[in-house]
Amino acid sequence: MKLTIQPDNMVLEVEKGESLLEAVRRAGINLASSCGGKGTCGKCKVELISGTVDSKARTKKLNANEVLSCQTFVQDEDVVINIPNDGRRLGSHKVLINEVSLPNPFPLQPLFRKIVLTVPEPSLDNNIDDLSRVLVELRRRTGIEDIYFNLPMMQKLPLVLREGNWTVTVGLAMLSCQEAGCGIDGCGPEGYGGCRTEVIELEPGENKGPYYGLAIDIGTTTVKINLVDLATGDVVDSGGEYNLQQRYGDDVINRIVYSVDAKNGLNKLQQAVLASINGLVEKMLDRQKIREEQIYTAVVAGNTTMIHLFLGIPANHIRLEPYIPATALPYPIHARYIGLIMNPDGFVYTLPAVGSYVGGDITSGVLATRLARRDEISLLIDIGTNGEMVLGNRDWQISCACSAGPCFEGGGIKYGMRAMDGAIDKIETGPDYEITVSTINNKKPQGICGSGLIDIIATFMKSGIIGRTGKFNKSIKHPRLRMGEEGWEFVLVWGKETEHGNDIVILETDIDNVIRAKGAIYGGIRVLMKHVGMSFDDVNEIMIAGGFGNSLNIKDAITIGMLPDVPLEKYRYVGNTSLKGAQMCLTSARAFEEVKEMSRGMTYLDLSVGNDFMEEFVSALFLPHTDFSLFKSVANF
Amino acid sequence: MKLTIQPDNMVLEVEKGESLLEAVRRAGINLASSCGGKGTCGKCKVELISGTVDSKARTKKLNANEVLSCQTFVQDEDVVINIPNDGRRLGSHKVLINEVSLPNPFPLQPLFRKIVLTVPEPSLDNNIDDLSRVLVELRRRTGIEDIYFNLPMMQKLPLVLREGNWTVTVGLAMLSCQEAGCGIDGCGPEGYGGCRTEVIELEPGENKGPYYGLAIDIGTTTVKINLVDLATGDVVDSGGEYNLQQRYGDDVINRIVYSVDAKNGLNKLQQAVLASINGLVEKMLDRQKIREEQIYTAVVAGNTTMIHLFLGIPANHIRLEPYIPATALPYPIHARYIGLIMNPDGFVYTLPAVGSYVGGDITSGVLATRLARRDEISLLIDIGTNGEMVLGNRDWQISCACSAGPCFEGGGIKYGMRAMDGAIDKIETGPDYEITVSTINNKKPQGICGSGLIDIIATFMKSGIIGRTGKFNKSIKHPRLRMGEEGWEFVLVWGKETEHGNDIVILETDIDNVIRAKGAIYGGIRVLMKHVGMSFDDVNEIMIAGGFGNSLNIKDAITIGMLPDVPLEKYRYVGNTSLKGAQMCLTSARAFEEVKEMSRGMTYLDLSVGNDFMEEFVSALFLPHTDFSLFKSVANF
Repeated sequence: MKLTIQPDNMVLEVEKGESLLEAVRRAGINLASSCGGKGTCGKCKVELISGTVDSKARTKKLNANEVLSCQTFVQDEDVVINIPNDGRRLGSHKVLINEVSLPNPFPLQPLFRKIVLTVPEPSLDNNIDDLSRVLVELRRRTGIEDIYFNLPMMQKLPLVLREGNWTVTVGLAMLSCQEAGCGIDGCGPEGYGGCRTEVIELEPGENKGPYYGLAIDIGTTTVKINLVDLATGDVVDSGGEYNLQQRYGDDVINRIVYSVDAKNGLNKLQQAVLASINGLVEKMLDRQKIREEQIYTAVVAGNTTMIHLFLGIPANHIRLEPYIPATALPYPIHARYIGLIMNPDGFVYTLPAVGSYVGGDITSGVLATRLARRDEISLLIDIGTNGEMVLGNRDWQISCACSAGPCFEGGGIKYGMRAMDGAIDKIETGPDYEITVSTINNKKPQGICGSGLIDIIATFMKSGIIGRTGKFNKSIKHPRLRMGEEGWEFVLVWGKETEHGNDIVILETDIDNVIRAKGAIYGGIRVLMKHVGMSFDDVNEIMIAGGFGNSLNIKDAITIGMLPDVPLEKYRYVGNTSLKGAQMCLTSARAFEEVKEMSRGMTYLDLSVGNDFMEEFVSALFLPHTDFSLFKSVANF
Repeated sequence: MKLTIQPDNMVLEVEKGESLLEAVRRAGINLASSCGGKGTCGKCKVELISGTVDSKARTKKLNANEVLSCQTFVQDEDVVINIPNDGRRLGSHKVLINEVSLPNPFPLQPLFRKIVLTVPEPSLDNNIDDLSRVLVELRRRTGIEDIYFNLPMMQKLPLVLREGNWTVTVGLAMLSCQEAGCGIDGCGPEGYGGCRTEVIELEPGENKGPYYGLAIDIGTTTVKINLVDLATGDVVDSGGEYNLQQRYGDDVINRIVYSVDAKNGLNKLQQAVLASINGLVEKMLDRQKIREEQIYTAVVAGNTTMIHLFLGIPANHIRLEPYIPATALPYPIHARYIGLIMNPDGFVYTLPAVGSYVGGDITSGVLATRLARRDEISLLIDIGTNGEMVLGNRDWQISCACSAGPCFEGGGIKYGMRAMDGAIDKIETGPDYEITVSTINNKKPQGICGSGLIDIIATFMKSGIIGRTGKFNKSIKHPRLRMGEEGWEFVLVWGKETEHGNDIVILETDIDNVIRAKGAIYGGIRVLMKHVGMSFDDVNEIMIAGGFGNSLNIKDAITIGMLPDVPLEKYRYVGNTSLKGAQMCLTSARAFEEVKEMSRGMTYLDLSVGNDFMEEFVSALFLPHTDFSLFKSVANF
């Protein structure tokens, strides 16, 4: 049978029983599907133009001509569908990389580097074998005893040595010690004695050509990469892209469910994130005119689930009590094992996790912000699909994670969308509930991004449109406040002014979702503080990391009770610390050792255990909070 | 064009310009070619029945209908050839494995073993990740700190652990220290602390199934394998086969030339020896009803060239002054890199070489015979295509190698053949030059094997058929002594009594070849003795190792001046010590460390440097020697 997709007018062959969602994906269209194809989120709906199909669950209100593509299956007829360009298609929009400068105290000691050696030419009196000859000089220069040559390198060595007339450029990957402490301080003149290394490149003569590494941040929603010149430590290119795993579910829980329940689910998720990364790397190779073999190493930060899925390690037990990851610190692996676009003999390193829900993205952030090297106490809050936070100083660190849900990234909100062109990021109210919206890049409104949601709620609070529980003030009689198909809703932009022609509304349940998310984050922070018996006055600095970046209005976030009510000058945006920490490790084996050691010492507070969190969470399900005294600056509300 | 091969009546497609030798090999017929296809050895000759061909060099006397297949190329016509079954075809005859019992002092500590662990079930209070949980227990049990899990094992771990209800069988490969000394004496309760290891197998629960390793001896001519149960150390199967590399040249020099000059020569040689090994392993798997995944490790002994070719490492520089191997001690490699039939994640180890011409077969022999652990001085002589010898005791060892050439294995001798059915291994002379021959298994005579050659020359000496220079006594007037096409020859068996109908003769040049071979061996021994300033009286035991095995008649060998004239009770056959040493390493990481350490301390005397050897060699080119006083027991000759 044939499936025609409008308005693209794309035609593809489909088989009886195939779901429209699968077919559409085959056609390269990334249709949103927060629930992972369970028929509950309603994001994958399409308009059926012609053809008889077998359409099942209709749990979301749909127009008469709409079907959920995940629950609709091709029968014996050709089918024509329409997928409007209204945001349900996940585009390949540029993901913003907020660059905030954080000082990097580590000297350049990259996890891969090239060393030029000249060895004595052999003679009848000096007839040791080539490999020993090179090892002697390599050890003398680096102080490293434990050097492994894999077979391709042993095969190359004799010819390369002679071609280079006894000068050879050796590419050395630092494997270091995983657990036992590698004595990294006992470095030789050019290296790090006591470590474990592998020779992964040999070139004749002195090869001064550039060589690169990748710092990669795998977020649940987005993937960001810096391409780094390892000889200088400079970032030569960078890029960001959505994590293509989104098509299998919006958050880590839905992804894990998919990895377990779907046929080849784990493999599909692994391939999806690899496709996201490889797509970015290919563009960089193209732009920088370099070969993939010149990328010799990669350091990856991500939450525990993302790292499992990236490596194809079953993540099943992360979501089942007692929440056990397969590994908190995977060993470095050869790139060839997973098909990352880079030198296949190069190594891929991942940052260590503290627990199932405090992953390498957070330890990376602690490394990048130097939180665990400061005398004063700081709080790092990384807000993404999960909210993770770390409190501490050089002597102790304690971390926890709470599920914010996908609402700040556009999930679970009727008109939610990511922070891209046309997303409402700010509103103002005028007389008679007049609403003025500002959108990213001043494009026609399409939906609401995370910081827009926070701003809307703060503004609604101040203008009395909602009360302390987040419910609409039903005494307002205005066409903007109305009972819709999904309950009470407030019209932000009338259809005639929007990109897609539909009214952009915010539902009462949308607001409820945001309150639950902000309540989880604030509850987590409170539990951390209580656990160590401290008040916010004891905290010197609160660092905001994550996708929000500088687009988050801190004042708004305090107003709705998401962030603690402390003087604004205590707050600091630190950007994507996950990526920054990964890059520090890439350019410094010493930094990598530090984060491994630090992660072993960090306390992980599991919020699912004990009742403190639930109590704090429930208390925070008001605007700004049940306890006004915690939000004195918001008290005039 | 079509090529038809008689008497097999095999037809195959050939291309214009293809050599008959290559075509014949494609057809699966292993035609001998000592010279590696240079047109000099004459072994690859075939009978041309019909068809016009382009036939080049004819350096050997050929019958009118014969051509050298390596120098003959298909033109525009179909060709029919005949390849008689007269020994020029290398069969798949069983290679004898001479089992001589040598005590093995090493406790069982195989390079791979399985350990059953039970770890505490995780809980909310004990929620470390699976990998750390297993590492804690594995370290406690083995004392090993440095344990690597490769990606497939990290992927398997969480499911295996739960399937086995927190009991897991871990397969551990010992990688040990290559150079730095691994402190192997600091073993933990069940292991070898201080070593480097890799987990290469994980099975749920307690898996008590057997697991195996291969001890492999790669000789220039033959390959021998023992299949060993690593849980008990017992040999459960063994086999031997010709090294299929023979088709590319008889000795290491010709093989190296082929590896360099022929298209894909190195790869062809590597694939040939792998085919030899894999063929044997497949038969063992079949006989023992085991799966290839159950073979977890292999230890390979062989001369330096054989090890290079086995691993696909260029051996070019072994034959060019200053004779430098690419590596004397290759690192252990995953089997997947070379396609050996065994568990692809398992490791392949090779024994250390001392130099380009004293390889891992000899260090293996020193290990197996305990030569380097004895108080008294011993001499180990391994006679194969090369002759290698080691003199020493626990305090010092000195080694050298000389090229005996292939004559003792059937090469370079007109009717030379390996020690198999129909090979003349002994003769007796009667009145009027009556000759009675004995053959292996009393089959119709086909040719002469190595021990037969030595016996013939010793017998000819005693009966006056040849003189001290090895020339025939031309005063003998008898039909057996005649001038043939290739010079003077002596008929041992008339055609009517032979397998192939041709007279079996020994040429004067054959005798000359043997004299050069025995002169090289004796010369090498003499140089070793002189180098340390010792006489044969100082030597407590002379051990004869190698393919000859117990089939060598020591008395004969002394008579012709190949072996020193010491009391016969000083001699001892030790069989295939290369294979035995490999097996010791397979079942004992400690033995492997010992042989690595020993090989670093052993002196290598390069006979190509200095003039001592040439002088000794020339002096030994008489029967038994120019200096009669060295062979007093032969003096009545």
